[in-house]
Parts: sequence; structure tokens; C-alpha cells
Amino acid sequence: MPIVTIQQFPRDLEQKRELARRVTEAFVEVYGAEPQSVQVFFSEVEAENWAKGGVMGSDSAGR
Amino acid sequence: MPIVTIQQFPRDLEQKRELARRVTEAFVEVYGAEPQSVQVFFSEVEAENWAKGGVMGSDSAGR
Amino acid sequence: MPIVTIQQFPRDLEQKRELARRVTEAFVEVYGAEPQSVQVFFSEVEAENWAKGGVMGSDSAGR
Amino acid sequence: MPIVTIQQFPRDLEQKRELARRVTEAFVEVYGAEPQSVQVFFSEVEAENWAKGGVMGSDSAGR
Amino acid sequence: MPIVTIQQFPRDLEQKRELARRVTEAFVEVYGAEPQSVQVFFSEVEAENWAKGGVMGSDSAGR
Amino acid sequence: MPIVTIQQFPRDLEQKRELARRVTEAFVEVYGAEPQSVQVFFSEVEAENWAKGGVMGSDSAGR
Repeated sequence: MPIVTIQQFPRDLEQKRELARRVTEAFVEVYGAEPQSVQVFFSEVEAENWAKGGVMGSDSAGR
Repeated sequence: MPIVTIQQFPRDLEQKRELARRVTEAFVEVYGAEPQSVQVFFSEVEAENWAKGGVMGSDSAGR
Repeated sequence: MPIVTIQQFPRDLEQKRELARRVTEAFVEVYGAEPQSVQVFFSEVEAENWAKGGVMGSDSAGR
Repeated sequence: MPIVTIQQFPRDLEQKRELARRVTEAFVEVYGAEPQSVQVFFSEVEAENWAKGGVMGSDSAGR
Repeated sequence: MPIVTIQQFPRDLEQKRELARRVTEAFVEVYGAEPQSVQVFFSEVEAENWAKGGVMGSDSAGR
Repeated sequence: MPIVTIQQFPRDLEQKRELARRVTEAFVEVYGAEPQSVQVFFSEVEAENWAKGGVMGSDSAGR
């Protein structure tokens, strides 16, 4: 621990790499956590598998 | 919030669209939630990644 | 399956009972699921354990 | 219930089948659970979607 | 990884200790995993926060 | 989206507030996300509900 799970639309590896680096850094600086104890999981969700306000992401413009 | 996560076998978009619409409606009518506050995530699971009674879905008939 | 997990602020039992009933009914009517196959989990989150826009729920008015 | 979710790197079906069998057996023997009440979900994570110590799995050797 | 999350009714520590031991052992023997890489989380669910067949656990006899 | 779920040992509100602020900032700066689209959930886990290497957190020194 800590285990961080991020549900998001698909992103390229470059962005995930930078985000994971910064999230881990936050745990180290704010909690004093050991870097190796921090695991980050990206769970990428397609617009056909997500709805907001009862409308599928794939049906809405400007989600 | 609320955030609704649904673990299920794969379904076509038409069924997910209708389900998300009805689930969101339930939150609006029962809780008085704002429709835009309700997010629904579908997490589709293949039969090779699920077991019941210790038997993989892909090994059982009539799961 | 299906397994439904709902992350929400705490609600009284009466509201959760009605919501679970309606969500289950949606799976039965839209997917043709067996009622007994549908499980609903409520994961209640206190305002001290949730943030939106970087602000904890317990620090914001009118969340 | 119980519902068991396993986040792991991809494994072949043979290993998942054996693992699910043994995990289910543990619930039956330790808790006295009904085998049919135990569901196991495998959530397979690619190395591009996981980081440890702020480094993506796909960037590290010997993860 | 692997990360194992178990949703269950509350159990005493003795049972959770034995279950975690056996689940971890299964990963070591079936996958060849390092014991220290296996983390098990118990997420205990009260009967007021779970429904099956549209009926809350706290409303049903013999769940 | 994005939805961030953090499994951790209990922390005081001050630390969670600062962590949520920094995690949200990372999404804004790295992904260009709208701050209001970022939700962070803290799921606090007691040492009686977590095991590493098959040993419960409550049984191990220096976890």
C-alpha cells in the first residue's frame, strides 16, 4: 500500500508515465511513503462503457 | 457521486444504453440525485476471467 | 454476475432498499437476467474521504 | 458473496483455472462457504497500465 | 501485484488470517509468485449494504 | 472521469486534503483535465483487513 486505481479514458503511455510519476511523488512528499510501496493501476474505459447523466459517452458530443 | 460500476459479461451497446438510462433514473427518482452527478461504468468480463464454484466460466455449460 | 457496486454518500436503509430493487429490476427487464444472479453492493463514502476538483467534500458547501 | 477480484499480469487459462479452484477451496474449508457462492474475477493488467515506485511496468526490467 | 480484494460479510481475524495465508500460498505455488508481492485486502460488507435478487441482506432470512 | 481510488492505511484529514489537491493538480497539468471532472476516493484499510506475504498487517511489525 498505497494502491491507486485510476479510471479514465485511454491515454498514451507518455501521459500515463508522467502522471504515475507525479502521483507517486505526492505520496512520498505528503505521507512520507516509500516510493516502492506505491502502485498505480490505470483502468482505461472506452466511451461505449461509460455513461453520465444516463447518456453513454459514445452518444454524447463534448463529453 | 454516485459512481456505479457494473461487472458483467459483454453486452451490446443497445442494452448497455438502456440499462444506464434506467439505473440513472432510479438514482434521480429514489435519491433525488442530479442526473449529471450519476456516472455508470461497465466492466465487461470474459468467461476466461471469471469462475463460480471454482469452475471457470469458459469451462462450464449453462453458466 | 452481474455485480453492481455503488459508491455514494451514506443513505438510509429505506432508500437503499428501493434503489436495489429498481436496479435489479432493470437487469431483469433489459438483459433478461435471473433476479438471483444480480448482487448490489453499497460502498458508502464519508465526505472526509472524497474530493472533487481537489477539494475535500467535508470542506465544500453544497457538494 | 464472497466476491474475489484479482489484479494481476496476464496469465494463461490453465494457471487461472488452478488458482480459482484453490482460492474457492480455501473459502469452503476456512469459512465453510458454499462453493457456488464464491465468484472469482481476474482483472488482467498490462505493463503499460501499472507503475511501481513511479516507474511504469513497461519501462522497468525485472519487475 | 498480484492484488487480491475480497468482498465478504464480516469474519473474525482468525479466519481472515488463515484465508490470507492460503490464498497467498496458492499464488506462490500456482504462479511461482514471490510471497511478498501478494497483497490481500478484505472489504467487509454489512447486510444493510448488500442485496441479492433485489432484496437487502438485512431483510432476508438464510442469506 | 477521471475517478481515482486510493487504498491506504488511515490518515488524518490534513494529509488527505493535501494529497487530493496534488493528485488533482497532476491530472490538470498532465492531461489538461478540468479540475471539476476529477474525483478522488480514499478507501481506508485497517491492518486487520490487509495481508502482505500471507501475514496480516496487524500481526507484523514494521509493515
